[in-house]
Amino acid sequence: MKFTDWSTYIQQRTETALQAVLPAADLVPDRLHEAMRYAVLGGGKRVRALLVHASGGLTHARPEQLDRAACAVELIHAYSLVHDDMPCMDDDKLRRGKPTVHVEYDEATALLVGDALQTLAFQVLAESPVSATAAGQLEAIRLLAVAAGSHGMAGGQAMDIAATGHEMTREELELMHLRKTGALIRAAILIGGQAGEGVNDERRRRLDHYAKRIGLLYQVVDDILDAGADTATLGKTAGKDAAHDKPTYVSLLGLTDARRFTEELLAEARAPLAPLGERGVRLAELADFIAHRAF
Amino acid sequence: MKFTDWSTYIQQRTETALQAVLPAADLVPDRLHEAMRYAVLGGGKRVRALLVHASGGLTHARPEQLDRAACAVELIHAYSLVHDDMPCMDDDKLRRGKPTVHVEYDEATALLVGDALQTLAFQVLAESPVSATAAGQLEAIRLLAVAAGSHGMAGGQAMDIAATGHEMTREELELMHLRKTGALIRAAILIGGQAGEGVNDERRRRLDHYAKRIGLLYQVVDDILDAGADTATLGKTAGKDAAHDKPTYVSLLGLTDARRFTEELLAEARAPLAPLGERGVRLAELADFIAHRAF
Repeated sequence: MKFTDWSTYIQQRTETALQAVLPAADLVPDRLHEAMRYAVLGGGKRVRALLVHASGGLTHARPEQLDRAACAVELIHAYSLVHDDMPCMDDDKLRRGKPTVHVEYDEATALLVGDALQTLAFQVLAESPVSATAAGQLEAIRLLAVAAGSHGMAGGQAMDIAATGHEMTREELELMHLRKTGALIRAAILIGGQAGEGVNDERRRRLDHYAKRIGLLYQVVDDILDAGADTATLGKTAGKDAAHDKPTYVSLLGLTDARRFTEELLAEARAPLAPLGERGVRLAELADFIAHRAF
Repeated sequence: MKFTDWSTYIQQRTETALQAVLPAADLVPDRLHEAMRYAVLGGGKRVRALLVHASGGLTHARPEQLDRAACAVELIHAYSLVHDDMPCMDDDKLRRGKPTVHVEYDEATALLVGDALQTLAFQVLAESPVSATAAGQLEAIRLLAVAAGSHGMAGGQAMDIAATGHEMTREELELMHLRKTGALIRAAILIGGQAGEGVNDERRRRLDHYAKRIGLLYQVVDDILDAGADTATLGKTAGKDAAHDKPTYVSLLGLTDARRFTEELLAEARAPLAPLGERGVRLAELADFIAHRAF
């Protein structure tokens, strides 16, 4: 299957799986449930779901096994977007080409939507056979929690707020991005990578090396897109990092060196995949997709 | 051991366990970690932790086994208080006699504190032997997630917002409170009730009957206290339900009938405990404590 056909297929599977795990919009409290579906469905590239499926392929896990794990990671991602867009954070009005949740509904609903989506992610992992054993299922929950918490995504967001208006060294910027964006992307890859049959330590190390580079690559490309694209193309407010005086790879390195850095990261991400043969191809294609995506 | 000695002992154990699971305040991002500790430590009656330990006693689980489960439930409770106090929700300035997190820090930090405390609760359950088997551990995670999510606590909060300024029937009020407060209290009891050796179906039914009554009892007493106490005694803003035009058991039934209702619920909660003998005594004492607490 060509990469674009495969990615479309996985995106559709993920959408169907998310439809099924989200509470129906007519269940009480209906406004909350409707807003949860609004926040999650019908948008997004589902990069994290693609990563779960691509790394799950390495363990011979079937797509049916991976759908719920992919849902859980996408639910965490969706919750973080809803909360990040709120007035006390980035105060953003547009997301995936639609009004953000607090604009379409209200702030209190947006707060509860994010809270309930996070809970649902852990419920889905606890209720679904996302790994071959109960111990593996617990490990998936642990990986997701560590990635989402104060040493991961939420911590990176706190560092982002603290950094606004301040200078940052390249090391500080990297640490912030590894947490804010990288941790969840890495978790997607590691959760997929333990879904099916066991992988040996060497393979696990290769996968983790790939995962760390991909997480950073994703954010550097995001910074480049934010600096260069217009709002209509991006589906979210463009140029907001500069407007908020936030340090980015573009503000730190300049556009040319930031672009060069993405090519370095892409090469570093692909390097450990070579010995994995045919089963590593999707991961390599995903690295290219993330590096060269236009939105 | 007398009940007051036992409850002080468990409260101290819980405080020590929470100190240990919360990230150190000097770890990056330090402001977030400091605020997480501020939100959780040094306050609260730890009713949910007491319930975990009391029902865990039924399964012959040792206190050491129950500490982490108690932490997880208290972390979810603490996250919900931080978010509920935010300006877009109840806009409260005082909690446990101290400024609320968004007042002491700022709104963005309060949002992230709540988010990260919820994540930490699930991490703690995934990493700790809160049940004798991995399957039991997954069941604890599932119970907590169902209780906290859109069919539980977050859903009850959404119903609460929707109800402000509206009339509610007694059935609607009960449904709201069973979710908003009752679900997490019930989860505390059920998580404790499967921590040690297995309990048979009849015991489980008795425990669940108790759990449902206790959840409601807790909220009715809360309504009575909110209507009658002053802010200094309560440690949070008194009279705020009436001020916000929120339906409560006091506004619906009047004070006398609300008091009578607590005595009915107390008797109903205690009834299924009688055949459990000595091991049910702590649960019965806790029911009394919840019904007759002064703050």
